[in-house]
Amino acid sequence: MNPRTASESLTILTDLVLPSETNPLNNLFGGELLARMDRAASIAARRHSRRITVTASVNHVAFNRSIPLGSVVTVEAKVSRTFKTSMEIYLDVWIEDRESGNKTKANEAIYTFVAVDESGRPVEVAPVIPETELEKQRYDAALRRKQLSLVLAGKMKPDEATELKALFV
Amino acid sequence: MNPRTASESLTILTDLVLPSETNPLNNLFGGELLARMDRAASIAARRHSRRITVTASVNHVAFNRSIPLGSVVTVEAKVSRTFKTSMEIYLDVWIEDRESGNKTKANEAIYTFVAVDESGRPVEVAPVIPETELEKQRYDAALRRKQLSLVLAGKMKPDEATELKALFV
Amino acid sequence: MNPRTASESLTILTDLVLPSETNPLNNLFGGELLARMDRAASIAARRHSRRITVTASVNHVAFNRSIPLGSVVTVEAKVSRTFKTSMEIYLDVWIEDRESGNKTKANEAIYTFVAVDESGRPVEVAPVIPETELEKQRYDAALRRKQLSLVLAGKMKPDEATELKALFV
Amino acid sequence: MNPRTASESLTILTDLVLPSETNPLNNLFGGELLARMDRAASIAARRHSRRITVTASVNHVAFNRSIPLGSVVTVEAKVSRTFKTSMEIYLDVWIEDRESGNKTKANEAIYTFVAVDESGRPVEVAPVIPETELEKQRYDAALRRKQLSLVLAGKMKPDEATELKALFV
Amino acid sequence: MNPRTASESLTILTDLVLPSETNPLNNLFGGELLARMDRAASIAARRHSRRITVTASVNHVAFNRSIPLGSVVTVEAKVSRTFKTSMEIYLDVWIEDRESGNKTKANEAIYTFVAVDESGRPVEVAPVIPETELEKQRYDAALRRKQLSLVLAGKMKPDEATELKALFV
Amino acid sequence: MNPRTASESLTILTDLVLPSETNPLNNLFGGELLARMDRAASIAARRHSRRITVTASVNHVAFNRSIPLGSVVTVEAKVSRTFKTSMEIYLDVWIEDRESGNKTKANEAIYTFVAVDESGRPVEVAPVIPETELEKQRYDAALRRKQLSLVLAGKMKPDEATELKALFV
Repeated sequence: MNPRTASESLTILTDLVLPSETNPLNNLFGGELLARMDRAASIAARRHSRRITVTASVNHVAFNRSIPLGSVVTVEAKVSRTFKTSMEIYLDVWIEDRESGNKTKANEAIYTFVAVDESGRPVEVAPVIPETELEKQRYDAALRRKQLSLVLAGKMKPDEATELKALFV
Repeated sequence: MNPRTASESLTILTDLVLPSETNPLNNLFGGELLARMDRAASIAARRHSRRITVTASVNHVAFNRSIPLGSVVTVEAKVSRTFKTSMEIYLDVWIEDRESGNKTKANEAIYTFVAVDESGRPVEVAPVIPETELEKQRYDAALRRKQLSLVLAGKMKPDEATELKALFV
Repeated sequence: MNPRTASESLTILTDLVLPSETNPLNNLFGGELLARMDRAASIAARRHSRRITVTASVNHVAFNRSIPLGSVVTVEAKVSRTFKTSMEIYLDVWIEDRESGNKTKANEAIYTFVAVDESGRPVEVAPVIPETELEKQRYDAALRRKQLSLVLAGKMKPDEATELKALFV
Repeated sequence: MNPRTASESLTILTDLVLPSETNPLNNLFGGELLARMDRAASIAARRHSRRITVTASVNHVAFNRSIPLGSVVTVEAKVSRTFKTSMEIYLDVWIEDRESGNKTKANEAIYTFVAVDESGRPVEVAPVIPETELEKQRYDAALRRKQLSLVLAGKMKPDEATELKALFV
Repeated sequence: MNPRTASESLTILTDLVLPSETNPLNNLFGGELLARMDRAASIAARRHSRRITVTASVNHVAFNRSIPLGSVVTVEAKVSRTFKTSMEIYLDVWIEDRESGNKTKANEAIYTFVAVDESGRPVEVAPVIPETELEKQRYDAALRRKQLSLVLAGKMKPDEATELKALFV
Repeated sequence: MNPRTASESLTILTDLVLPSETNPLNNLFGGELLARMDRAASIAARRHSRRITVTASVNHVAFNRSIPLGSVVTVEAKVSRTFKTSMEIYLDVWIEDRESGNKTKANEAIYTFVAVDESGRPVEVAPVIPETELEKQRYDAALRRKQLSLVLAGKMKPDEATELKALFV
């Protein structure tokens, strides 16, 4: 399978925060943002794998800034690393100020998708080639995240998580 | 007011065709695509004008290709020309084949938006600077479309629509 | 095929403007109205043709009046003319004042639908018989609009658009 | 307060059954039809009373026919009788066969609405004048339904429900 | 068929009142509550019958309390009695005060569902065993409601509705 | 502030998987489940704190089982531990087989919410008292998760994360 660059999977979903998506403080519901990021990430995963893709997991997501009604929200999703049948997708979420046009980072998130065939069975995916400095950092960190997730799921002994262990000892 | 380039307003809305948006042939409803293009165009207009923007009109839109359930649809919107308080937004809609990754043009559309203040009164907008060949073509054609729309609305005599008249005589 | 009167296809869709359909000024989004008109027009086209119908194009639509949250909006759609496999649908949109009960025209729109069989292939439709004065006017104007659309699409030479040309020379 | 005829409040809501409104048998959910009828009835009540109106109760509604995905559903709502601050709304729901164009009654329903002022307090409404034979029948039956509802709510002794009692003795 | 207790079918649907579900007074639309209750009742019917279930009818529902935007609404549904292929579902709707945590009854409703096979034909359901005092009361009253509904539908002579007749004579 | 038991915040949201929430394999979108869990968790957090609550973060969520269209999904949310102004909410998601009635665990998730006042400023919350064995386990593990999240966010040195460090050395 021919590897593809990370940027080939870049997916941009720019949309408004609509009144039906807001909480009592008139900010975007966390859950709605999670759903929107899931759609963008699934398209990035599909662009990389050329397959049907299904959500396998969501990493820790922090909601650092509230996003008010009427905001323009840009979700950018890109494959950061692949592991046989799974793809880690890194998402950056931006909001922009209407008057100045300035963009600020609202939050980041990491989703994992699996490529499947028409009957839902996992299939192998092409490797990804990181090009920019940021893509390379995220590519490297993906291995530590993978180990952490295996340790937390009890599928890897903490002792074997070499990348991760280095953090603590 | 400082002019802005056309590309500064570029807005990309990539999203899936969901089951709730399809007709009895399992293709995207024309009306849903119109609504999605309206949201993308309103963001492009807002990015250019830094104002609240409201839909003023939709030009002729042709639906040449049906867009099946599950498709990835990319709507790209950009300001093509401005007229005092109004902005013409040109939209290109693409669908992509999952297996080959090839993109094909599904349709084009032209919306007009007006910039308004908090109380809904029209306010002036900055001019736009077309840079690419396509942006220049669309900038020029926008004047003919403006005249056509004034003639059809009975606000300009066909005789005065110099740009347009040239087509017929 | 037996012709049918225009009024046989009359479709009325009266509904409220809900909070999820409004923009930052608390008025109905242009895109939502376009989607609502598309559904009403598709029913009128279906009533005339007794077939599955799909949106072929939308003519110029002007949004002259803003429609506030909570309004009662009445969309009236009727087939104005047919061309072999396509139907032009003329829409009138009304809003009414709650206290006086007075109705005012919010806007007009023209959609074109094509009748298709179960596999999506175009099929012929019955001619329409205009009866009222307004139906006759719209029937006649439909030919000019058809020519304009063919000219703009580059499928008819301006010179051959006799009805249209008469406007300019 | 000047009485108004029943037909002045006639509200027609014709719309498609969309995929997001169907159950596992691909028929319209009962609950979605109840919501659609509620919107149509609230508009009829508003047209009669020229006031904000809120749902007070729903009478027995029977779902006799299933309504498949893609159907055209016409909801017709009309005020059948008023009682000081409340209005009984009678609804008829029709579906039509695409090929023959024949309409069949899918079901009937009766909702009661109350007219309120801006702070939500009930206000008096004008009487209604039934004109057709059917409007008169429904007007008369409305009194029996009112008594039945008062008896069932424990607000009227069965003995005093003269209209209703006549049915059983 | 082995009978099941009423409590085995208990279904709890706790959810927020979202902005897209509210009327001009910022309270939950009656129609939205009807749709939400329909979903909860269909699950209770399915839990009892282990079948696909479809709404057959809705009994009188009174909306005694308005439910403001942002409220937490708890719908509790339970099978109260069965009749061959149909099940009566009794619903209690509660809202709770955020600060005190107190729950108050917003309204009650009674829906009837029919169990069907994959082709939509009615199939027999197991009987229900009421256990608590309230379940027993509702079980007994269900028979009177059944008779009332048969009388109103003209399928039973008032004279034969022994349970009901006792109310009036 | 008086502590409250974990079970006082128990929130149950049982609902169907609707056609508008499914992916091309006819299973529930990961993103829709994330949104549904967010609503349930926000209610549990509100029941515990008696305050407006906003999503602060989502922990690792694994989607182990696909959830097909038409499934009955039960989301159970309960406060597992509190930290000054934040609450960890533990969610269990179940699906049930229609014919046997058997419930199986579809997945687990952990959300963190913050209690805020009307202007959005964080306010202190009451401690939680775990009672069952499972509640106690989750209460204890919450501290390790808190440390992990602080380490990953760079707000705590790995060395100080005593609970966590014990896993690796």
